[in-house]
Amino acid sequence: MTETRTSLKALYKKNEQETLKDFFKFLRFESISSEEEYKEPVLACAKWLKNYISNIGFKTELWETAGHPIIFASNLSAGPDKPILLIYNHYDVQPVDPLELWESPPFEPTIKNGEIVARGAQDNKGQCFYVLQALKLLLERDGTLPVNIKLCIEGEEETGSEALSKILPTKKTDLAADYLAIVDLGIPKMEKPALTLGVRGIVTFDLTVQGSNTDLHSGQHGGVTYNPIHALVEILAKLRDKDGAITIPEFYDDVLPLKPEERSQITLDFDLQDYKTTFGATPSGGEKKYNPNERAWTRPTLEINGISGGYTGKGFKTVIPAKASAKLSCRLVPAQDPYKIAQLVCNHIRSLAPDGIDIEIAIRPGVGSAVRSDVNSKIIQAFSKAYKDVFQIETGYIFQGGSIPIIQELAEASGASVALLGLGLPGDKIHAPNEHFGIERIEKGSLIIARALELLSG
Amino acid sequence: MTETRTSLKALYKKNEQETLKDFFKFLRFESISSEEEYKEPVLACAKWLKNYISNIGFKTELWETAGHPIIFASNLSAGPDKPILLIYNHYDVQPVDPLELWESPPFEPTIKNGEIVARGAQDNKGQCFYVLQALKLLLERDGTLPVNIKLCIEGEEETGSEALSKILPTKKTDLAADYLAIVDLGIPKMEKPALTLGVRGIVTFDLTVQGSNTDLHSGQHGGVTYNPIHALVEILAKLRDKDGAITIPEFYDDVLPLKPEERSQITLDFDLQDYKTTFGATPSGGEKKYNPNERAWTRPTLEINGISGGYTGKGFKTVIPAKASAKLSCRLVPAQDPYKIAQLVCNHIRSLAPDGIDIEIAIRPGVGSAVRSDVNSKIIQAFSKAYKDVFQIETGYIFQGGSIPIIQELAEASGASVALLGLGLPGDKIHAPNEHFGIERIEKGSLIIARALELLSG
Repeated sequence: MTETRTSLKALYKKNEQETLKDFFKFLRFESISSEEEYKEPVLACAKWLKNYISNIGFKTELWETAGHPIIFASNLSAGPDKPILLIYNHYDVQPVDPLELWESPPFEPTIKNGEIVARGAQDNKGQCFYVLQALKLLLERDGTLPVNIKLCIEGEEETGSEALSKILPTKKTDLAADYLAIVDLGIPKMEKPALTLGVRGIVTFDLTVQGSNTDLHSGQHGGVTYNPIHALVEILAKLRDKDGAITIPEFYDDVLPLKPEERSQITLDFDLQDYKTTFGATPSGGEKKYNPNERAWTRPTLEINGISGGYTGKGFKTVIPAKASAKLSCRLVPAQDPYKIAQLVCNHIRSLAPDGIDIEIAIRPGVGSAVRSDVNSKIIQAFSKAYKDVFQIETGYIFQGGSIPIIQELAEASGASVALLGLGLPGDKIHAPNEHFGIERIEKGSLIIARALELLSG
Repeated sequence: MTETRTSLKALYKKNEQETLKDFFKFLRFESISSEEEYKEPVLACAKWLKNYISNIGFKTELWETAGHPIIFASNLSAGPDKPILLIYNHYDVQPVDPLELWESPPFEPTIKNGEIVARGAQDNKGQCFYVLQALKLLLERDGTLPVNIKLCIEGEEETGSEALSKILPTKKTDLAADYLAIVDLGIPKMEKPALTLGVRGIVTFDLTVQGSNTDLHSGQHGGVTYNPIHALVEILAKLRDKDGAITIPEFYDDVLPLKPEERSQITLDFDLQDYKTTFGATPSGGEKKYNPNERAWTRPTLEINGISGGYTGKGFKTVIPAKASAKLSCRLVPAQDPYKIAQLVCNHIRSLAPDGIDIEIAIRPGVGSAVRSDVNSKIIQAFSKAYKDVFQIETGYIFQGGSIPIIQELAEASGASVALLGLGLPGDKIHAPNEHFGIERIEKGSLIIARALELLSG
C-alpha cells in the first residue's frame, strides 16, 4: 500500500510541471456561466476539457443543452465485477467583479506563496483537475483503473445547474453508478482533514419594488412619493428580528433539531480568532442563539446577495428612482421543502408592500434540497480512509453551509450513494477577488482520489 | 405696454427657427458635471455658451476653477441710474442613466408633441436659454437694456456648486447687484403661473458599511458573518418610523411651523388624481400627518438616493459582499442649520452600527440652507406682474421642495434681494429619462424676463 502511494506520488512529482502547465490552460478560459457574453469561452473551455479527458484514456461525450454543454466521460476498464463510481465536477466559474480588487488578472493564473491565484483556481477547476490527475496517474502506471469511472462535469453549477437538471431523466443509463462523489467541497484546515456529511439546500429570488412610473427629483418629490429604496430597505429589514432570526411565518416549521448521533459525528467548535484573522470581522450575523458552525451547517438562512437602486456612480444624483431591486437566497436544511419555503418567502414579502409600492418577486432556477450522507456507507468509509492515508491525520466529519442543488437529483438519477468531499479551505476566497488554491492540494487531491478508488475496488 | 409686448413677441416669432436651432446646439453638449469622463464636453459647452452670449452683446469672461468653469457676463448699457439685476443659471446637467429608458438619445434633442426631449431641456439649459433670448430680443430691438444685467452661469449645480462657492468671496465686486433672479424653478401648471417664495436646503452623504475584509460565499458564511447589506437595510429602515417621520434625535428641533401669513400666501391644495396620472403612484411617502405639499415645501426629509452592494448583474451570485453603500440626502427648511443636521445624521447612523460592522459616513460638498423670499420686495412684485402680463392669469405663490445650495451664498456675495422663478412643470422628468421642455415655454419665458426687466427699470 505504502509502496503504491509512494509510486503515485513519485509519478505525480515527475509530471508536476506539465500538470501545472495544463491546469493554467484550463484556468485561462473565461468560463463564466452566468453572463451571456461569455458563452464562447465557456464552450471553448468545455471542448478543451473534453479533449484533455480523452487523452487521459476516457471515452468522452459533449452533451449539448439549451445552456452550456455537459462533459460526460467513462472508463469502464475495471470490468463488470467492479463497482462504478460517478464523479461530479463543474468547469464553470463565478463572475469576477469587483475586478479592481484583483491583485492579478483573474484569468491569468499567478503563483503567490505556493497558491495559484485565479478565478476557479479552487471552485471548481482546481478540484476537477486533481480528480483528472488521479485518473491520469493510475492509467499511466497501470493502464487500467481499480473501479469503473464515470465523469459528469457540468458548466452551469454557478447558475443553478438548469441544463443538467433537465437532461438527467434522459441520461439515467449513462449515469447509473454505485457511488457518487461530489468533489466540490472543503476541509476546515490542512491540519483537520474532514469529509462533509451534509450541505444545505438553496432557493434564490429576484425582488423588485416599484413606486412611480419614472425616476423623480428628490427635491420636488422628497417626502411626497414613496421612495422605492426606502420601501425595499424597510421590507428587507423586517425579514430578520433583532436576534437574527428570520421572521417569515412557518419558515422554521420543518427544521429538525440536530440528532445526538449527528452532533457526535461533527465538531461544532468554532475558532473565533482564526475567523477574525482570516476575514477581518466577527461572525456576528445570523441567529444569535446558535454557535457559528451550527448556524452555517444546521440552520436555514435568508441572505441579501445583491441590492441596487437609484444613482450609485461617482458624485451624487438627487433622484428618487422608479424601482429598486434585490437578489435574495435562502439556504435550507434537511426536511425543508425548497418550493414550500419559496412560497412562504414570496407571500410574506408581498404582504409587506406599503401603500403606493408594487412588488415583483420571482423564484430563480437552481432550487435544491439539503443533502445528508450516511457515515457508515462504503463510499464514506473509503474516502475517510483515503484522506487519513494521505494526510496521515484522522479524518473528521463536518457539515458545510454551501449548496449544490444538483446533488439530490444526480443521486436519484444515478441510483448511487453519495460522498461530498474536496480540499477547499475557508480562506480560498471562492466567489471573491483573488480566489486561490494551493499547489500542494492538487497533489494531495490526486493521491486521495487514487487511494479511494483502490479502497472502493476491494 | 401691450404694443411693446406684441413687438417682442413678433420678433421672437421671426427668430424662432434660428432660436431652436441654437438651443439644440446647446443641448447636444454632454455637459454632465458629475462624471470625470465628461470634463471635455462640459468645457466645450461653456466655451460655446460664452461665445453665444458675447454675440448677443455682452462682455463675457470664463472663470477658471478647480472644477468646471463659470461664465460671467455683463451688459451695463442701462447706465448707472438703473439697477443691476444678476441672473443665475447653470449649463451642467444630470447623468442620463438608465439610458435604456430614453425613447430618443438624451443628447439628440427630439421634438415630440410640442416638447423638446433631451437631458437638460428644462433643467437648466431650457431656462437659461429663454433668459438669453429675452436679452437678445431687447438688444436686437433697442440696442440697449432697460436695466443693467449680469449673468452668472455655472457648470456644477448638479454636483453642489463647489467651484462657484469657492470663488464667490473673490468676485464680490463683479457680482454686486440690486436684484438676483434664480431662474431654475417651476410653476404648478400652465394654468397656474406662480413665483417661488422658498426652496429647501440640502445636505448629502456617502454611507458605506463594511463587514469582512473580502467578499464571502453565502453558503459557507450565510448566517455566520454579518452581511453588510443586511446591516445597511437595517440601519436605513431605522431612520424613519412607521408614520414616515425621521427618527434621528433632534432632527426636527429647529423646524418652525408655517406662519399664518406664509400659509395665506400659498396654496397647499394637492391634486391627488393629477399626481397619480402623471407619476403612476400615490404620494404615500414621507410624514403621514402632513399633506403632500406641506411635506414637499415645509418639512425636512431624509431620502436614500442610491443603494448598492453585492451582485446586481444578470443571473445570480451567492456572495456576501465585504461592503454595501448608500447615498443619502436631507432637504432642510428655514432655521435648520445644514451642518448641525449633518452632524446629527452622521452621529445617529454611526450609533446604529451592529457588532461586526464598520460604518463610514461622509458629508458631501454642496451643503446649502433653505431660502425664503420677501413677497413685498420690488423684484418679487416685478416678476409677479411680468408673469401675469404674459400668462394673462393672476400669479400665485408657491414653495418648492428642491434645493439650490448656492442661492444663499450668491445672495450674500452680491448683496441682492432674491427672486426664485422659472417655467418648469412637475411632469418635465428632470433628472430622469426623457426630460422635456415645451417650445411654448421658451417663448413665454423670453417675454416674462423681458417684461420684468422693463418693470424693474421703472
